[in-house]
Amino acid sequence: MSDKLTHFDADGKAIMVDVGGKQATSRRALARGEIRMQPATLARILDRTIEKGDVFGIARVAGIMAAKQTSSLIPLCHPLALTSVTLEFTPQPGTGVVEIAATAKVNGQTGVEMEALTAVSLAALTIYDMCKAIDKLMVIGEIRLEEKSGGKSGDFVREKAV
Amino acid sequence: MSDKLTHFDADGKAIMVDVGGKQATSRRALARGEIRMQPATLARILDRTIEKGDVFGIARVAGIMAAKQTSSLIPLCHPLALTSVTLEFTPQPGTGVVEIAATAKVNGQTGVEMEALTAVSLAALTIYDMCKAIDKLMVIGEIRLEEKSGGKSGDFVREKAV
Amino acid sequence: MSDKLTHFDADGKAIMVDVGGKQATSRRALARGEIRMQPATLARILDRTIEKGDVFGIARVAGIMAAKQTSSLIPLCHPLALTSVTLEFTPQPGTGVVEIAATAKVNGQTGVEMEALTAVSLAALTIYDMCKAIDKLMVIGEIRLEEKSGGKSGDFVREKAV
Amino acid sequence: MSDKLTHFDADGKAIMVDVGGKQATSRRALARGEIRMQPATLARILDRTIEKGDVFGIARVAGIMAAKQTSSLIPLCHPLALTSVTLEFTPQPGTGVVEIAATAKVNGQTGVEMEALTAVSLAALTIYDMCKAIDKLMVIGEIRLEEKSGGKSGDFVREKAV
Amino acid sequence: MSDKLTHFDADGKAIMVDVGGKQATSRRALARGEIRMQPATLARILDRTIEKGDVFGIARVAGIMAAKQTSSLIPLCHPLALTSVTLEFTPQPGTGVVEIAATAKVNGQTGVEMEALTAVSLAALTIYDMCKAIDKLMVIGEIRLEEKSGGKSGDFVREKAV
Amino acid sequence: MSDKLTHFDADGKAIMVDVGGKQATSRRALARGEIRMQPATLARILDRTIEKGDVFGIARVAGIMAAKQTSSLIPLCHPLALTSVTLEFTPQPGTGVVEIAATAKVNGQTGVEMEALTAVSLAALTIYDMCKAIDKLMVIGEIRLEEKSGGKSGDFVREKAV
Repeated sequence: MSDKLTHFDADGKAIMVDVGGKQATSRRALARGEIRMQPATLARILDRTIEKGDVFGIARVAGIMAAKQTSSLIPLCHPLALTSVTLEFTPQPGTGVVEIAATAKVNGQTGVEMEALTAVSLAALTIYDMCKAIDKLMVIGEIRLEEKSGGKSGDFVREKAV
Repeated sequence: MSDKLTHFDADGKAIMVDVGGKQATSRRALARGEIRMQPATLARILDRTIEKGDVFGIARVAGIMAAKQTSSLIPLCHPLALTSVTLEFTPQPGTGVVEIAATAKVNGQTGVEMEALTAVSLAALTIYDMCKAIDKLMVIGEIRLEEKSGGKSGDFVREKAV
Repeated sequence: MSDKLTHFDADGKAIMVDVGGKQATSRRALARGEIRMQPATLARILDRTIEKGDVFGIARVAGIMAAKQTSSLIPLCHPLALTSVTLEFTPQPGTGVVEIAATAKVNGQTGVEMEALTAVSLAALTIYDMCKAIDKLMVIGEIRLEEKSGGKSGDFVREKAV
Repeated sequence: MSDKLTHFDADGKAIMVDVGGKQATSRRALARGEIRMQPATLARILDRTIEKGDVFGIARVAGIMAAKQTSSLIPLCHPLALTSVTLEFTPQPGTGVVEIAATAKVNGQTGVEMEALTAVSLAALTIYDMCKAIDKLMVIGEIRLEEKSGGKSGDFVREKAV
Repeated sequence: MSDKLTHFDADGKAIMVDVGGKQATSRRALARGEIRMQPATLARILDRTIEKGDVFGIARVAGIMAAKQTSSLIPLCHPLALTSVTLEFTPQPGTGVVEIAATAKVNGQTGVEMEALTAVSLAALTIYDMCKAIDKLMVIGEIRLEEKSGGKSGDFVREKAV
Repeated sequence: MSDKLTHFDADGKAIMVDVGGKQATSRRALARGEIRMQPATLARILDRTIEKGDVFGIARVAGIMAAKQTSSLIPLCHPLALTSVTLEFTPQPGTGVVEIAATAKVNGQTGVEMEALTAVSLAALTIYDMCKAIDKLMVIGEIRLEEKSGGKSGDFVREKAV
């Protein structure tokens, strides 16, 4: 691990770090998060005889599209040409929790963890938006990097949540 | 509370709900969230003799700018002309937690909770981005609506976290 | 009807027309269009036992999101705060035609026909994108304004296609 | 031709297809479309002594700029660094038809047909916008892929319109 | 004039100022600027028998479109629904200077000087982009607010350049 | 130097020039500009006991983010994946001038002078926005390319301002 906040220069000025000298490699990141709602709310989402609309389908599209906007949302992120984004939703009807996982890939000079994390975040916010009329107590959380591979700093696999 | 997922019509098709008949009122929403990091990471952010850069200052700008992009990120959100956005960061050095609060306001026909939640989310992601070189275990969480006022459905104040 | 291309001044310079003096009224526009594909392609979309994915659901989201981007895509369009967008897809299995209808609404000083037409166009392009691996001969067409109401120039209802 | 809607995984979930393993080659796509208007409307556009403004010039800029936004408009499109975009307008004064052709190029891992089709579509919508004050009956149509080269699936040349 | 940098709160934190309590009035701003080039470069632009393309026409479109993006470019700017944008280019063949003027209007709670200044800036940058192959010494300058009307702080007319 | 405005084809039609055949090399551009204000205004910015907020810090973020939007703002610019952006502000308290320098880098087929110039321009506009409540006479100027390296046309170093 670096011992430096790399987004600042020696004088503390924000910079978009120079990655021009780094090798373009095949990189991949997996991020996870969740949205917690009342079990009754989740039941409504899942029972398509009550709600015919596909909340997760729309949230998936939102997450994919947000991943592509990452560098215009996060000030010091590098623009990069994502080669793949996928999202997975795992609802737990008993607890009202929906787990969200996003994987992003690129052939590039810098990692894609921010893209994966942004996909999870916007997918969660989209679920929130679609359910807020019936549940204002939802909480989005546990958004974290799970795995990362392909960069010079070596592969990363989270051992357990902090 | 509504008993309906308002973003679907009777056939389950996603819609941008018609708010044209709603009254334009002065609306306000307060959202909160947090990013949890290793206390040593937070100490680095806070000790400006080590890190001269202003992580929270940049995250604040990112949050404000993201609030303005909410309707282009969340598929069924209405575009609206925000009249105010503010963000507050409260670091807890002992635990490594940074609390993030965002307030959004509008004179309009629909609420601004998504704008406040989006501001919190992108501010947290920006902090993550700036610190990820030294801490890959950070977790973003507890993103929730805290207060909401000004709409027809009455004011909302969260009693306690779920 | 005007006898002038209103987006130019007397010298032929492009302008974003001044609508500041126009009354903010409740305006609505309905646009239609279609995408023609091989009937076998449409059958694939419709038979969810073959293709489990929801092509129209994703195209609907794309159309709604595109409507919100209209003023950043069409150079001389005014930005406006849409109050509603809806899209409808009507597949004709026999002919391979999918009819697309989009309705946009606003309380504002200028009409929303461009928003409705943009929604139809991007929905069609999204269907094209999702089906192009199996059918390269698809054609998008008949994109037109069907109805328009609420402006000073009076209501418009298309009598029949040109 | 593929026999699969590649934008869905085996469970029917929308994905941004992984193109990371595909070869970066020089790719090119040509799309065509048209906008049909009353011949008197087209005469107005063409007779620069009546209308001094350059409708096609503005539509060309709109088409080029839209091509660059393709991946933020079409949910499952890959972002890519276009190396060239050109547009051509061919008015047919007798019939009131304006033919629009757009060519896009890239050195990349995926094709640029969506970029060419998006350029045609937004160029047509821009013409519509600029002429709608004098002609509400315009129809945009026949938007289609004409040629495509450079990908693994081989070159494509449309034989005749469907 | 205020004696305060209004974009900071009492603690020095950046905020999007709350304009919710301000009156929506008809506001207008006029900004000017210039791009200075070698007279031979300007002659090329102006002599349409040499260069058939319309540099100013494209720069005008760029300026209008940029004005609409102002609030997504300038961090603490309020989003607002512009009712009009116009640009004027005045070339001075003898000196190689092109004067650029932009006027923006809104009915709103905050002024439009940033929109007018942004329009001038991006129009100038677009001219630069189109001419840079033949002249690398161009300079963009004298970008300033010329007039402003409609806000509570009273009308402003610049007396002379600083 | 070219003797041609490369953004037009032989008929004067605007094109996004085909750079597909150019070599991807490591390119760098340095642009400079300034904003001139009343010395009292600059003193306010610099004396953080009066104004606790960090005007240059926010302008720096705005400049970096704007550099990433260059190809969506300037009609005929190519999209490219910037590898680095940095900005430097040099205030001259005696004269009230703030010098702004921006450096952009890419490994690509086309230069990054427009990205550097756009970063300077938006940083200056952001300073203007944050100070306009106390000084309406500010002027943005002297925006120019200072150095450029890495392209086929050879390196460029400006000798002196025009």
